[in-house]
Amino acid sequence: MLTPEQLARLDQAFNPRGVAVIGATTEQHRVGFSVLESLLVGGFEGEIYPIHPRHETILGKRVYPSLAQVGRPVDLAIVALNERATIDILDELGRYDVKAAVCVAGGYSEIGEGGEELQQALADAAARNRVLLVGPNTLGVINARVGLNATFWPERLQTGGEVSVITQSGGVGQMVICKAQEEGLELNKWIGAGNRAVLDFDGLLQYLAEDPTTSVIAAFIEGTDRARSFVELAAEVSREKPVVVMKAGRTAQSQAAALTHTGSMAGSYKVYQDVFAQFRLLSVPNVDSLVSACKALALAPLPRGGGIGMLTPSAGPSILLVDALAELGDSIPPFSQKTLDRIADHFKNVPVVLKNPLDAAAAGYATEGYLALADAILDDPGIHLLVTINLDHKNRRFPAQELVALSRQHAKPIVALFIGHGERVLAYREACQAGGIPFYGSVEEAAWGIHSLVHQGARHLAEGAG
Amino acid sequence: MLTPEQLARLDQAFNPRGVAVIGATTEQHRVGFSVLESLLVGGFEGEIYPIHPRHETILGKRVYPSLAQVGRPVDLAIVALNERATIDILDELGRYDVKAAVCVAGGYSEIGEGGEELQQALADAAARNRVLLVGPNTLGVINARVGLNATFWPERLQTGGEVSVITQSGGVGQMVICKAQEEGLELNKWIGAGNRAVLDFDGLLQYLAEDPTTSVIAAFIEGTDRARSFVELAAEVSREKPVVVMKAGRTAQSQAAALTHTGSMAGSYKVYQDVFAQFRLLSVPNVDSLVSACKALALAPLPRGGGIGMLTPSAGPSILLVDALAELGDSIPPFSQKTLDRIADHFKNVPVVLKNPLDAAAAGYATEGYLALADAILDDPGIHLLVTINLDHKNRRFPAQELVALSRQHAKPIVALFIGHGERVLAYREACQAGGIPFYGSVEEAAWGIHSLVHQGARHLAEGAG
Repeated sequence: MLTPEQLARLDQAFNPRGVAVIGATTEQHRVGFSVLESLLVGGFEGEIYPIHPRHETILGKRVYPSLAQVGRPVDLAIVALNERATIDILDELGRYDVKAAVCVAGGYSEIGEGGEELQQALADAAARNRVLLVGPNTLGVINARVGLNATFWPERLQTGGEVSVITQSGGVGQMVICKAQEEGLELNKWIGAGNRAVLDFDGLLQYLAEDPTTSVIAAFIEGTDRARSFVELAAEVSREKPVVVMKAGRTAQSQAAALTHTGSMAGSYKVYQDVFAQFRLLSVPNVDSLVSACKALALAPLPRGGGIGMLTPSAGPSILLVDALAELGDSIPPFSQKTLDRIADHFKNVPVVLKNPLDAAAAGYATEGYLALADAILDDPGIHLLVTINLDHKNRRFPAQELVALSRQHAKPIVALFIGHGERVLAYREACQAGGIPFYGSVEEAAWGIHSLVHQGARHLAEGAG
Repeated sequence: MLTPEQLARLDQAFNPRGVAVIGATTEQHRVGFSVLESLLVGGFEGEIYPIHPRHETILGKRVYPSLAQVGRPVDLAIVALNERATIDILDELGRYDVKAAVCVAGGYSEIGEGGEELQQALADAAARNRVLLVGPNTLGVINARVGLNATFWPERLQTGGEVSVITQSGGVGQMVICKAQEEGLELNKWIGAGNRAVLDFDGLLQYLAEDPTTSVIAAFIEGTDRARSFVELAAEVSREKPVVVMKAGRTAQSQAAALTHTGSMAGSYKVYQDVFAQFRLLSVPNVDSLVSACKALALAPLPRGGGIGMLTPSAGPSILLVDALAELGDSIPPFSQKTLDRIADHFKNVPVVLKNPLDAAAAGYATEGYLALADAILDDPGIHLLVTINLDHKNRRFPAQELVALSRQHAKPIVALFIGHGERVLAYREACQAGGIPFYGSVEEAAWGIHSLVHQGARHLAEGAG
């Protein structure tokens, strides 16, 4: 666990006045070049100091021969040196009060013998110099809110989100970023934990828990010797901010592969899942469900119960969604008699089966009818969340704004499963998501969004009642 | 089963000289309008005859008061009338030798009592008039190769694919179309089977099996009383053309929902899966896996064994992929000593763990090194399929063309898992897929693509050896 002072220093590093790139280089294929380029491409507006003994400028930036020549505050250093030089530089970072260092080099505990000792030396050097160390063997860190892309992946990210990510694997973390961008979900902070020589899952989680701009936390874990302390903290944090956990290593085959990656045993997947369940942590199986869960939790209000109502103009997709929800343990209760009467009254002589999910068939395509049925379902006291299923059609406008208004009026979440593709659909998605309606294109992703809301809603209810 | 004459007539209907829209209307919110619009938007180049007793033109097309006034061949009629008028029109369709009718109306067996009898009357009228009937209660049919969009979903589809689709649900079928478009997979024929009053899964499958432009068949089934005949035929067809089956109704909850949809019991999911396994049919759990499987089978050559080699610059994604493959029963065997020696020789003094999956780390980012390692793995006699994992990076070109050449040179399939987003990635995907390398953005989808190739490859080997 981190002290209040360490937390404050880490926050300075994520919102740095100046960032040094130790080992910046002109060689385009090297990490030291990509790190500097990432800072520039990412749109960081603080000071950037490339450090290299001989170069004069790189990518138009003045290069400094060493930190000593910078003469201005450096709160974060990205160290793109080899595994031994990375250890050696820490004394210098300490001397100039650099708050945190992102160490990208590999060749530590993940390679086994020899690497373990190097990693210990690295951790000792960091402690001696009061430098909070991210990694080693990490892609880096991101704070999208200030345009800080401190990785060797030069991409400009969307800004302004409330979802922050801790990932043991840079590659998996990149999958999370790509999926989030595809889904119109903006991220906030992203931390590649790597080998966790100093900053481990618990400290990083503690930081995000106290970060006022983060409201949902996603964590990808391959394995750790200190799972229990992380899980206990995550359970505590989840009372206020949901923590969604994805654990790798479901099979013996992948556990063998993980051992040689970040230097940690994957452990028994079953044991992890049991502990997650015991602490009521939301555990997801893959990147798509992780992003789907975070999206729902970041955008929608929590339901005050587990009753899911479903309205669709086509039965097939609703059948698939019922399957997916039932497998996650969620329920589609019958509507109340009053609701059934209202629905029957709406359809009058149209042959329709009165049940939940409600297949409104062709009658459900007309906007007014669709909204009247949505209103009737939201009015049902046994329904706490409405799922609207829609099929894109060029002659029928999807009533995104009206659904947003209905959700607010009833103070119940709505989740949209929308089948379509192309520009028109993106506009619908934007209108929904800006209004608190998470919008999905796949059955499984919608199910994870719904399940996450029901899960977190139940936590809140249980704790409010306790 | 269909007679050769019926199959020939059905093929005429899918490649029609003229299409009649019975019940075309000027009212934009009605199905009779959308059907006509779909034919126009879809780019169909044959003759289109809107039929309505009073209108003169709709959407710029001359309207005919009845089929009698058309006076030219009509091979396909789309009937957008109510459930009783649909039955009545069949005598007229028979009189003018219309080969097939797509009947969109609902209100038949799916509504239970009363509906069953109407459906029988519809089937009788079709038989009496030698009209092959698709539906009722269907979205329609598509033949993308001739721009024939005979549905009430006015979209222009990509053309030229080899994957054809039979779907019991129009909505789920639309999800398949949307996902295929997202994945750069072009479809060929798409058939909404609906209530299957006349044309059932087996007849439709028989037609696609004999269709020379179809090389992969996808089938979505909610439930059928005649599962066994379909499965036996599908197993037979799969000797030459893979048939990928998606079955709804995994849970009791969804089986209740399906009963009131297309008028068929969903049956026990477990029984279906056992029969699929007995006949070695490839069964997938959802739309994404259905499209992923079809994409691999349509694009890549079949492997001559089940040995999967994996090359990655980042361990995390490969660990997830190993998990996903292991759960599908696929294996990642060790490399041969010769292969390990070649890899060790390549890396020389770089610390790397010599195993499958091969994590080439930073050394794997350089194009030449990556290709040398891919070549070494493809040379291994125990490896029959190579998976390349890559992370998009603006300063590193993904060697799509070179991988296509390697796949051809070794006569072994390559599957690409690529993490990235945006225009650059779409260009890589196009280059890969045009060259026979299925390209995926998600671990689970890549796993289904790989698994499908291994599954179908094993079928071919077993039958070649028998």
